[in-house]
Parts: sequence; C-alpha cells; structure tokens
Amino acid sequence: MSDTVKYLLDEEHLPKFWYNINADLPQPMAPVLHPGTQQPITPDDLAPLFPRAVIEQEMSTEREIEIPEPVREVYRQWRPAPLFRARRLEKALQTPARIYYKYEGVSPAGSHKPNTAIAQAFYNQQEGVKRITTETGAGQWGSSLALAGSLFGLEIVVYMVKVSFNHKPYRRAFMETFGAQCIASPSDTTASGRAILAKNPDSTGSLGMAISEAVELAVQRDDTRYALGSVLNHVLLHQTVTGLEALEQMAMADDYPDMVIGCTGGGSNFAGIAFPFLHENLRQGLNTELIAVEPSACPTLTKGAFAYDFGDTAQLTPLVKMFTLGASFVPPGFHAGGLRYHGMAPQISHLAHLGLIKPRSYNQLECFAAGVQFAKAEGIVPAPEANHAVRAAIHEAEKCREAGESKAILFNLCGHGHFDMQAYTDYSAGKLQDLTYDESELAMALAGLPSVC
Amino acid sequence: MSDTVKYLLDEEHLPKFWYNINADLPQPMAPVLHPGTQQPITPDDLAPLFPRAVIEQEMSTEREIEIPEPVREVYRQWRPAPLFRARRLEKALQTPARIYYKYEGVSPAGSHKPNTAIAQAFYNQQEGVKRITTETGAGQWGSSLALAGSLFGLEIVVYMVKVSFNHKPYRRAFMETFGAQCIASPSDTTASGRAILAKNPDSTGSLGMAISEAVELAVQRDDTRYALGSVLNHVLLHQTVTGLEALEQMAMADDYPDMVIGCTGGGSNFAGIAFPFLHENLRQGLNTELIAVEPSACPTLTKGAFAYDFGDTAQLTPLVKMFTLGASFVPPGFHAGGLRYHGMAPQISHLAHLGLIKPRSYNQLECFAAGVQFAKAEGIVPAPEANHAVRAAIHEAEKCREAGESKAILFNLCGHGHFDMQAYTDYSAGKLQDLTYDESELAMALAGLPSVC
Repeated sequence: MSDTVKYLLDEEHLPKFWYNINADLPQPMAPVLHPGTQQPITPDDLAPLFPRAVIEQEMSTEREIEIPEPVREVYRQWRPAPLFRARRLEKALQTPARIYYKYEGVSPAGSHKPNTAIAQAFYNQQEGVKRITTETGAGQWGSSLALAGSLFGLEIVVYMVKVSFNHKPYRRAFMETFGAQCIASPSDTTASGRAILAKNPDSTGSLGMAISEAVELAVQRDDTRYALGSVLNHVLLHQTVTGLEALEQMAMADDYPDMVIGCTGGGSNFAGIAFPFLHENLRQGLNTELIAVEPSACPTLTKGAFAYDFGDTAQLTPLVKMFTLGASFVPPGFHAGGLRYHGMAPQISHLAHLGLIKPRSYNQLECFAAGVQFAKAEGIVPAPEANHAVRAAIHEAEKCREAGESKAILFNLCGHGHFDMQAYTDYSAGKLQDLTYDESELAMALAGLPSVC
Repeated sequence: MSDTVKYLLDEEHLPKFWYNINADLPQPMAPVLHPGTQQPITPDDLAPLFPRAVIEQEMSTEREIEIPEPVREVYRQWRPAPLFRARRLEKALQTPARIYYKYEGVSPAGSHKPNTAIAQAFYNQQEGVKRITTETGAGQWGSSLALAGSLFGLEIVVYMVKVSFNHKPYRRAFMETFGAQCIASPSDTTASGRAILAKNPDSTGSLGMAISEAVELAVQRDDTRYALGSVLNHVLLHQTVTGLEALEQMAMADDYPDMVIGCTGGGSNFAGIAFPFLHENLRQGLNTELIAVEPSACPTLTKGAFAYDFGDTAQLTPLVKMFTLGASFVPPGFHAGGLRYHGMAPQISHLAHLGLIKPRSYNQLECFAAGVQFAKAEGIVPAPEANHAVRAAIHEAEKCREAGESKAILFNLCGHGHFDMQAYTDYSAGKLQDLTYDESELAMALAGLPSVC
C-alpha cells in the first residue's frame, strides 16, 4: 500500500497577511453600482450593512492585508490546515498523476467558511456591533458564523433556505448549539419574506430570497450588521489563507501544481485556493490552470451572462457585474446546496471573462460517484459541494493515465459530508438523478436582467 | 479574549510503540476462562476469533509493543492528534484551573476508535483474513472498522444495536459509504439473533446481543474473524497512542496533569489517555488522579459487581473477571450509546478494584449542559459519550474556582457529535430527561452472574 502523505506547516507559518487579487488585476473590474442611482457605490452606501474595516477591505487594492492577531489566534485552533498527497487514491486510479488536496474540513464547523466568519465577527465586534444577520443554503456558512458569533460574543440570526432547513435539521441543531437563531426562509419575519409567501405560500426558498431577508433585518437596527459567506471581495480575500498555506505546503512537497481545482457556488472556496496561485502565474509567468467547477444544473460561469445583476431576489443589494443566471433563477434541488446560487463572485467572473480562470461543470451523479471513490481511498467523506472538485481532480487524473502523463493536481477539499449523509443514503439507494434546469426559465431570468446605462 | 492554545507534535513524535499496562500491574489479573471448561483460555481457544498477532498482544506482558509501520502510515493522516489548552472555557468558568483536552475527533471517523480499528484490520489482512465481523452501539466503532476495512481491502459486517440503527441512519450511511455491510441487531441472520427475536420480536437490541451475533458469524467461516472495539487488552493497548502523545504534549506545555479524565463504556478511550499516566504514577511515585466517568444510568464501575461474567448475552464469549451489571442487564435508552455496556474492560476493572483508578458517574442532562457550554467556548460539539468527560472536567474546574486552587486537568475529548445532533435537538427542546435503570432488574441481572469455581 502506498500511503497518504501529510504536509503540515508549523504554526509560525500561519499566514500573517491575506492576499488581495485586486492589486494584480490585468484590467480593472466594473464598478459596483447603487441599486437606486446606478452610480458607483461609496463606502457610506455600505455602512448600514458592514463594519468599516470590512468595507475598506472590500474596496482595497493593497496586495497584502494584515490578518489581525485575534483572528490568527482563533485560526490556530485548526490552521495551518493539512495538505495531503492522495497516494491511495492515485493507486486506486492507477494514474501517474500526483494528486494533492488541501483539507478545510478540519475546522470546527467542518468547512473553509470559518476563515471569513471569524474575521467578519472580529471586525463587527471591534466596531461595537451586537448582532449579525446572514443567510445560509446547505448550512456550512450559517454554522461557521454561529461558531464565530459564539467565540466573539455576538448574536447571530441565520435565514436558512427552507428546503435545506427542512432537509437538514441537524445543521440547524448545530447552529443552535452555538447559540444562533435559525429561521426558515422565506419567513414572515421580514417584508420581503412576506411578499414572497403572499405570491407563493409553498415557496421552498433560495439563497437570493434568504439574502433579501437577512439584509432587510440588518438595516433595521443600528446595532446590527449583515455578513455574507461568499461572493464579495473581502470574503474571497479572507479565504486566501488556504491558498497561501498550500503554496508553502507544495514547496514542502517539492512540487508545484499544474492545475488548481475548486468548486464554485459564490466563489470563495475556489478563490481561496486559486488566487495565490494566480498571483504566481502573473508574477512569474507560470501557466498553472485554475479550474472552477460548478454543477451542470446551476451553470453560472458556463451558461450565464456576464452582466450587471442583483445579488438577491428582492433587489435590495448593490448591482454587481458578474456571471449570472438572473436573480429570479431558482436552480433545481440538487444536493450541493452551497452551489445553488444564481450569481458568481465579481472577481472570479472578471477573471473568467479575461480567460485567466477555466470554468467547467459536472452532473450530480458523477460527483457523488467521485466522492464515494475518494472516501474509500482516502477515508474522508466529502461534502456534496466538494465532490465537484473531487470529480474534476479524478477526471484530470484519468486523463493523465490515458496520456501517460504525470501532472500535479491540487484541489481544495473544502468540507466534510457529516451533515450530508442523507444525500449519500439517497445516492447509494439509487434515488438520486441528474437534474436539469428549465431552459425557458433560464431564458426568462436572463431576459429579466436589469438594464444598466 | 484569552485563547485556545494548540500543542501539536511533529510527525517524528508519533509514537513507535504502544504501552502495555500488563507489564506494570501491581498484582496479576484473574485469568480469562473458557466458557465451557472454566479453565484459563489458551491462544488456540481464541484462534477462531482473532488473528494470531492480536492474540499475542492480548496475552503479552511486554511493556512496549511496536506499532507496525503500515499502521503508523495510516495514523499519520490525523496523528499526532492535537492537545489544546481550553483557555476560552477556563475564562467562561472563571476558574484558576488549567484545562487541557486531547482531541481525537480529528480522525476521519470522528473518534479515537480508528486507533485500534486500523491496527486490527492490518493484522487481519497480514494473516490472510478476508472478512471481519463486529458490533456497534452508537456507531463510532462500526464507522471506524468500516474505514479501516476500506483502507486494507477487507469486507466488514457490522451488527448495529437496533435502537441506534433506527435512530442513526446517517451512521449507517457513513459505514456503507466505506463499503461495509450494516445489519440491525437482533437480526435473523444468526441463531442467537433468531433466538432473541423468538422470545421478544420487538427487542431493540443491546451491545451484548450484537456481540453474540458478530461472534457467531465470525466462527462460521475460515476466512472471517471478529473484532472488538473496546474491553479487551489489545484494544486498550492500541489506544495508548493517545496518552503517549499527551504525555509529550503536556511536556511541550511545560505542565503536568493533576488529574486525567476519560469517559468509560467498555473502557478503551479512558485507558488510552490514562494508562501512560498511570505508568508514570507507578514509575515515579506520582499521584495524578485517574478519573473514569460513566453514565449514572449504566453504572458498571460504581454500582456493578467485580465478578466473572460473559461479554455477551448469548454467553458465547470467554468468561472475564470485571465490573459488570450482569450480561442480561439492558440499560435504559440514554443518548450516549457508546457507554451502554453491561461490563467493563478487565484491566480497568482490576485497576479500579486496586484503587488505582477512581470511577464516578453523572446523569445525562448535566452532561449535555456541559457539552453545550464546551461547544460555545471551544467551538467543538462533543459526542454525547465525550460529554461525560467534559462534565467531570468542568466539575473539577468549578471545584478549583471554589477552593481558589489552580490544578491541571487533562481530559480526552474522544469524538465529535456530528452524528448525534438529534440528541442535541432533543436536549435543547427540553425533551431529554435523566434516566434510571430498574433496581430490581439490576438485582436480577447480578443474581444471574455465572458461578465460577
């Protein structure tokens, strides 16, 4: 048996700075627009939503942004996170490829999400905020903010997409154990929730709707702010701690990736692993492929439009230029709830538009098959979202086998599947199928994109 | 905020040997007896159940037993496991105590159980075994053996106590993802299962019954052996890797525990953390208190008899001298399924009888309260079994606060609660209560202990 090899950094190698891709964009991004005036937003426009430190990061073009020591102190509980060489998987695949994975499931919430939750909770606490509202799909983000709120003494209110709320009672219990309040969205606690329910009392919700509710609640009280678990620049920034560690760990392994793979819902997990390697591509003229993997049933980067759109259903958020399926698009109910979002991080959208990031998509069944194959070889049951990255990595390793090429493949195993076992149960019982979105619904959602002068 | 501090050993410090307490017992243990002849068993008696290397370990009095390199290679995926100083918990408790916890939930199966599952799977594979049978209560052990079977290419059959099988479908899904077969016990696949069902078709099962079924299946086929996840000497031996690491990590922290705490079901988790410190007590004349914590509703060490008994209901196992509530005792259905066993490891029983280990018990509700308090401070949601150790640690820290004493408290956080969220849901909904066993049932079970000449 050839074996998994672990590359573990000393705590002294825990990064002191996050990496800000805004410092290195080959072309500037389109400005974020105020939804009313369609003029570029100012820090003041965002002040009801975010603490000042976060707004500064959102707009910063500094390459390195210091990670505050209290955030690093919490990070140290599980960071630096391990990077593994998947030798047992390589053997099972009979591939000459070298497969590496960064494992973010070691965090107490079980995913990469605490990397930004801890930071956001810290900045809010520093500025006297008492309560943070947010939305969650699969529950990884809500769990992480609940954890962060508990550590920093903040009240947390999570709007959880109703279909997930009903399917995943244990995610809710997990959040509540940390003291957070978890509300099924759409709910009657907000005007936007009530409006959705009036139109469709049976609505099972969407991330876009839950965002509307969380934002609405946040702006109502001075002591309350809102937190987002993906999409925005500052969130992607906080996630770069994973890629920065991985850069050092690949050096420990005396190797360098030919490709870096991550799954993309809002984009933060992919950005976290990929942006530091993109920086090396730009800085050193390297050609590491950066592969963003999305579900075929919610194909934002591969089938969406690159256009201005709202982040939420009720059109309360600023307008951002991004790949989008239209804010009214509701993807079918596949199991990777964290990838069921109509939009995509503007930074990732911009880089994909420039050809610096290569998107692709896979169907649900092949992703679960890859996840089971990975679990049997490596011992870790991945989250359904992470299975998309696993699928791409196995696909690439199989191509290496066919071509007789030994490439180095690095992917982000962004979380474990302990709260997703119903999906695995359904998969092994043959109850899952590949889902497709409704073409005409997508066309309608795209036709409804806001016109921006 | 004062912060958690992590003590992480380099991989070079992964122990090369397990520690065998049999080398240092102040008095010899009572022999294990053949159930038919009541004569001390021989290695040959055990050969239908275990591979020869395991039988040798079961009977060995060597102090150090080498950990095979292929086992260490798998261990390295998550070992050395971290030891944390729980500074945030200390602060929440306002205690001068120094609280440390060894965290075994970092293993892919989420508990300490893979420490022995990997070893047992390895020895079986080495000796040409193709299939291993076992039983599981809460599912931690079954998951761990399923994982180990997947890594070493062995077929695994798990008899899961029916009440847990029904309450914890996700544990079953987890085992099946690794390719194991999981059967609700009592079942109609064995004579002992059928006999139990004939008497009581609604039987919800017990560990004692599941052991009978697993043992029966194992002895039927030459290519099949049986594995136990606790109780036996070799299992406790394999778990000492945790205490050996903790010894080094306490030295890193420049501290030494005044007490070492672990929960006890069959005893392996407690033995793992405690025996290396007991060795130091004996060797150096130290007085570290070794506190074994059990549920008040299954009080083997605190209310049981120290007597010869069977390990299982159908009386298929050898007779061992241990603290026992009687093999026919069925504990009430509290949530810490891993602690619902009528017996106790003979080594622990012997040491408790000699006064070298101090047992105590707590009720379910106070244990869940402690678990929630721990989760809010330290970010980790413990398994219900581990909550017993958490409760004792918090209790001791509170005593320190009252006495104004700063003691060093080390406990084994033997697993996370990701598959136990229903218990937390019930607890926070106020649906849990403290359970008590039936006094007359216990008296009857004790009266039914086998008479041994």
